[in-house]
Amino acid sequence: MGNTFGKKLKIMTFGESHGKALGAVIDGVKSNIKISEKDIQKELDKRKPGQSTVTTQRKEQDKVHILSGIFKGRTTGHPICLVVYNKDADSRIYERWKDVFRPGHADFTYLKRYGIHDYRGGGRASGRETVARVAAGAIAKKLTKAKIFAYTIQVGTIKAKKRDLKEIEKNPLRCPDKEAAKRMQREILKIKKQGDSIGGIVEVTIKNCPPGLGNPVFDKLNADLAKAVLSIGAVKGIEFGSGFKAVEMKGSQHNDQLYKKGKIRTRTNNAGGIVAGISNGEDIIFRAAIKPPSSIAKEQLTIDKKGKKVKIKVSGRHDPCLCPRIAPVIEHMTALVLAGAQ
Amino acid sequence: MGNTFGKKLKIMTFGESHGKALGAVIDGVKSNIKISEKDIQKELDKRKPGQSTVTTQRKEQDKVHILSGIFKGRTTGHPICLVVYNKDADSRIYERWKDVFRPGHADFTYLKRYGIHDYRGGGRASGRETVARVAAGAIAKKLTKAKIFAYTIQVGTIKAKKRDLKEIEKNPLRCPDKEAAKRMQREILKIKKQGDSIGGIVEVTIKNCPPGLGNPVFDKLNADLAKAVLSIGAVKGIEFGSGFKAVEMKGSQHNDQLYKKGKIRTRTNNAGGIVAGISNGEDIIFRAAIKPPSSIAKEQLTIDKKGKKVKIKVSGRHDPCLCPRIAPVIEHMTALVLAGAQ
Amino acid sequence: MGNTFGKKLKIMTFGESHGKALGAVIDGVKSNIKISEKDIQKELDKRKPGQSTVTTQRKEQDKVHILSGIFKGRTTGHPICLVVYNKDADSRIYERWKDVFRPGHADFTYLKRYGIHDYRGGGRASGRETVARVAAGAIAKKLTKAKIFAYTIQVGTIKAKKRDLKEIEKNPLRCPDKEAAKRMQREILKIKKQGDSIGGIVEVTIKNCPPGLGNPVFDKLNADLAKAVLSIGAVKGIEFGSGFKAVEMKGSQHNDQLYKKGKIRTRTNNAGGIVAGISNGEDIIFRAAIKPPSSIAKEQLTIDKKGKKVKIKVSGRHDPCLCPRIAPVIEHMTALVLAGAQ
Amino acid sequence: MGNTFGKKLKIMTFGESHGKALGAVIDGVKSNIKISEKDIQKELDKRKPGQSTVTTQRKEQDKVHILSGIFKGRTTGHPICLVVYNKDADSRIYERWKDVFRPGHADFTYLKRYGIHDYRGGGRASGRETVARVAAGAIAKKLTKAKIFAYTIQVGTIKAKKRDLKEIEKNPLRCPDKEAAKRMQREILKIKKQGDSIGGIVEVTIKNCPPGLGNPVFDKLNADLAKAVLSIGAVKGIEFGSGFKAVEMKGSQHNDQLYKKGKIRTRTNNAGGIVAGISNGEDIIFRAAIKPPSSIAKEQLTIDKKGKKVKIKVSGRHDPCLCPRIAPVIEHMTALVLAGAQ
Repeated sequence: MGNTFGKKLKIMTFGESHGKALGAVIDGVKSNIKISEKDIQKELDKRKPGQSTVTTQRKEQDKVHILSGIFKGRTTGHPICLVVYNKDADSRIYERWKDVFRPGHADFTYLKRYGIHDYRGGGRASGRETVARVAAGAIAKKLTKAKIFAYTIQVGTIKAKKRDLKEIEKNPLRCPDKEAAKRMQREILKIKKQGDSIGGIVEVTIKNCPPGLGNPVFDKLNADLAKAVLSIGAVKGIEFGSGFKAVEMKGSQHNDQLYKKGKIRTRTNNAGGIVAGISNGEDIIFRAAIKPPSSIAKEQLTIDKKGKKVKIKVSGRHDPCLCPRIAPVIEHMTALVLAGAQ
Repeated sequence: MGNTFGKKLKIMTFGESHGKALGAVIDGVKSNIKISEKDIQKELDKRKPGQSTVTTQRKEQDKVHILSGIFKGRTTGHPICLVVYNKDADSRIYERWKDVFRPGHADFTYLKRYGIHDYRGGGRASGRETVARVAAGAIAKKLTKAKIFAYTIQVGTIKAKKRDLKEIEKNPLRCPDKEAAKRMQREILKIKKQGDSIGGIVEVTIKNCPPGLGNPVFDKLNADLAKAVLSIGAVKGIEFGSGFKAVEMKGSQHNDQLYKKGKIRTRTNNAGGIVAGISNGEDIIFRAAIKPPSSIAKEQLTIDKKGKKVKIKVSGRHDPCLCPRIAPVIEHMTALVLAGAQ
Repeated sequence: MGNTFGKKLKIMTFGESHGKALGAVIDGVKSNIKISEKDIQKELDKRKPGQSTVTTQRKEQDKVHILSGIFKGRTTGHPICLVVYNKDADSRIYERWKDVFRPGHADFTYLKRYGIHDYRGGGRASGRETVARVAAGAIAKKLTKAKIFAYTIQVGTIKAKKRDLKEIEKNPLRCPDKEAAKRMQREILKIKKQGDSIGGIVEVTIKNCPPGLGNPVFDKLNADLAKAVLSIGAVKGIEFGSGFKAVEMKGSQHNDQLYKKGKIRTRTNNAGGIVAGISNGEDIIFRAAIKPPSSIAKEQLTIDKKGKKVKIKVSGRHDPCLCPRIAPVIEHMTALVLAGAQ
Repeated sequence: MGNTFGKKLKIMTFGESHGKALGAVIDGVKSNIKISEKDIQKELDKRKPGQSTVTTQRKEQDKVHILSGIFKGRTTGHPICLVVYNKDADSRIYERWKDVFRPGHADFTYLKRYGIHDYRGGGRASGRETVARVAAGAIAKKLTKAKIFAYTIQVGTIKAKKRDLKEIEKNPLRCPDKEAAKRMQREILKIKKQGDSIGGIVEVTIKNCPPGLGNPVFDKLNADLAKAVLSIGAVKGIEFGSGFKAVEMKGSQHNDQLYKKGKIRTRTNNAGGIVAGISNGEDIIFRAAIKPPSSIAKEQLTIDKKGKKVKIKVSGRHDPCLCPRIAPVIEHMTALVLAGAQ
């Protein structure tokens, strides 16, 4: 269980890292929307491996195929099945570690949960699973008028000072601060050389979100976004608007003062665009904490299935920092939430 | 919509702050469990107003009534309806502000969403809605073997240094550090005198959670907990284990090394007890950022429905800091997630 | 589980025959609809006991209370909780039979499922559970423009020859054929005197249902109606349009020929108003087979929990034929399906 | 919407008659079950076209591919994606009738619902959609101990007199009465020659279903089965146990008397194995009314999208009677319900 997401717009995803294919079925897409494989491919290319020096050097084309739901270039209202066939998965390295619990990985918990684990490339727990999220999210983006920007604002201790959203797709970090991006890149390459990895923060700004989206009580828009983002492996936390800074603030500082200038606005945005679970028309803003990738080339101590101590070096081609490639995943999960919000 | 929570254990809640009653219907409770109104009342008393000098001085008994699902003191497997009738709600103050959008409150967004708003006491958006969560959660606690502790670790800039869990129910702050609790109390009373309010952090520790709980991909245990906690008004963020600190960490530091001593353990707990969405048997640990309450006695500038500028002082009896009363709410939402996890 | 119904319009019901109360919480009702307790009471009165000589002689007022979701006489978009408190339940007779499996009743299967059974008045399995369905359905009726008529067309071997829908509420049988109604009434009284009971057929005609309602594949409008109606105890079967008569028909006879006269119509209505799961604008017509009530005054042979043979006479005040009181239940379940259809 | 089925065992299906592929994703399958493409293919072969003289003469191999969820021949607990690629679909005939509303078909209602319709082979409304149901159901059969038999008991006016379940797979009618099967076959061939089609009844017997399966109130086992079966195109009605015959019965006849002989049994089975929504351990028995196929070679009068009168002869290779091929579909939908029941 756990492979279905959304209510009004519903997706079910499938596939393992080294299986035959990954994909998603999307139901609830309204009819008569123009959608092509090209539209989806464009988004998948943002998360594909091998984009730059700061991502894994694996080469996978991640070509998407639409199997259903489109007729003469338009949605029919029926479920859209998207499939990405796996091509050159090399499972040999995983055969070697198949009885070892890699630190920070799903090996132990999946085995505990299911009594069987497809260890090849992490199986269903692989970051590769997010291919299906981006593919489905590419369709969700067609269904919402909001503009979603997800970008790196911190890598290790290096922080972006600016929010130049036009800069995001111009540097390999997806960072809205050109200068910070360069320093982040240098930092990542340094850490990669050490056989290590590093964490970071991805921020999201949603523009043009109409007021009135979301629900009271349990299905608050922020609660749904939190679930969507925390469901992505490697995300350790989320905060909206003022976030953890609100802890040290007083009510008189934190309350966003309302005013009217044409439409109703607030002077500050500590709320992060969502009040009582419902969008208020301001930019929706949240930040996700990303942990350093678990797969590192440094030697680590762990155990195997029998409890025997083992030293492991997870060689292979892994991301030294997830921010550049996880940002598009967060962006597309956000799109799925917005497109399904009512 | 948005008033249903959970799958395997499902609740639907209802009720407004100044309506006739608040309550919950709970379905999926297994049969033959001993449950009495006393069990539930005990938990409700933890969140009721007027407990101490640091909470609102309103006096509501919040007495729970079981309307169904219990026969001869035991659950029958059929839905349990819990109702708390509202007693002495005084709506007069709200009549005065009925056309004003109070800053930080649901007035504007609810009106935008529904075109009608029960402004008395905040209606459905009131913190009073959480009565139903605690009542339902009290039943959930009977269904899980895990022990859940929710407690205040920060108020404004004052932080708890200790985690003495036995201390929690002994001070009005629900703080596991006796000394810090005293300072927090002084700070809150000072801020209250200023007609202002203050934020804080509530931390949760779950003990005795068996490994193997939770799901892969979308219904990760941490994703479900995040949704549960972010669905509580006033929560601005959540982080698991290392949380936002993971951002500056390297993989070699962050990875929790596995070892076996009787059962399989990890030497550190940066994961916060959940790996790849599934519990690993370590303590589950997360923290929630709580904003300062929006209802303050200080004068604030805002507008009314017509867009006219208005000065407002939200007098009345409000909590100056939410931590002591929101901790039990977070605890019971956590219980609902755990009892429904598979 | 199993106490939730609907998706877009969602209800959760609760309560036992001899417990404190029965009721429903309804979520998904759009805001600003005028609803009063009187509106709901009017519908509840159609199913209440003691209406006529052909129904049970018990006297219960089944007075409904709205606990939430209505403000100044209008819906707020928040959940509506409806409660009917039980008044004069007399459980003494049930204490006598508490260890006996009454034939045709839930005693055995509920005990098998849950290991505990509230035997008083049948507990959750009582027909009294349908109070909650009618109360919730009364709200659903406010949300759909379709007009739903549910009426008795057969009792034992006596069949209605006419479909005079204005006649339905004029006779105790809810039969659209005045003459047949009289004969049905005589038949029921005769069978009642024998201490026995009799089956019947309830037919539903839905007028003014717009074309385009329902879904393809699994959530076909007829599939959803079938589930709704078969979920009512005592319903043994359902058929749409031509129904079981279609078995002996040829395609050339069965196909409804389309034509256009203003709007698009069909000359015949073998489809019963639904084609490929979606309404076509013709009257939706279906029939439900109702079994004879299981509670009869005649002596029956059965066993108790220990397997010992027992002779039982279920004295008390029971319906000799369910049609007059089940018709409103079917009508309101139909309303719940239509109001939730998209 | 409408393409998801089940709760504990959940499937989402996709695909159009003449699109690239049809398939299903199945979530909730427990781990460590042996499943191969061969297991599924065996079931698909029962519904494939071209099996005999009484089914359509189209030749499609309907070869299934497992894309995910199986590792080393066993289920992993992760979603299983099953795909059947369409091979030799010939859409030319459909181009000719693309603007015509074929009587008894989805053309009009789908267009009304979605404003666009993939008319090729009926698109999503095609009976070919059931490929996905059978494929998913083949997996469900692995998860239930119950034995499900679905078979033809009536074609037009010809009825089976026997229930020799071993006979079912031995004749092209899937009829448990060898002699009746021969007469049914002759009848179908005669009607086919006339360019016409004929209806029938499929009965289901479920053996070895443990008592205690199903839920009270809305998710009664019979209600879920009714929805499952009515969701199959061409099904006009369903009845359980005594079914529509119960209408003319008295309670004293209809009540099934309980007795104990080793386990608790009933002497008759008017209940059809389900009491108060929960299985009682007796055989579960129900019957489905199947309408005559809408695609007939006889000339019919209808209209096109503009409302203009059109004469149409739906030539091509169609089933003259659906019973032999719909029986396996009903069988597999039944398996999905049982495997998901709790």
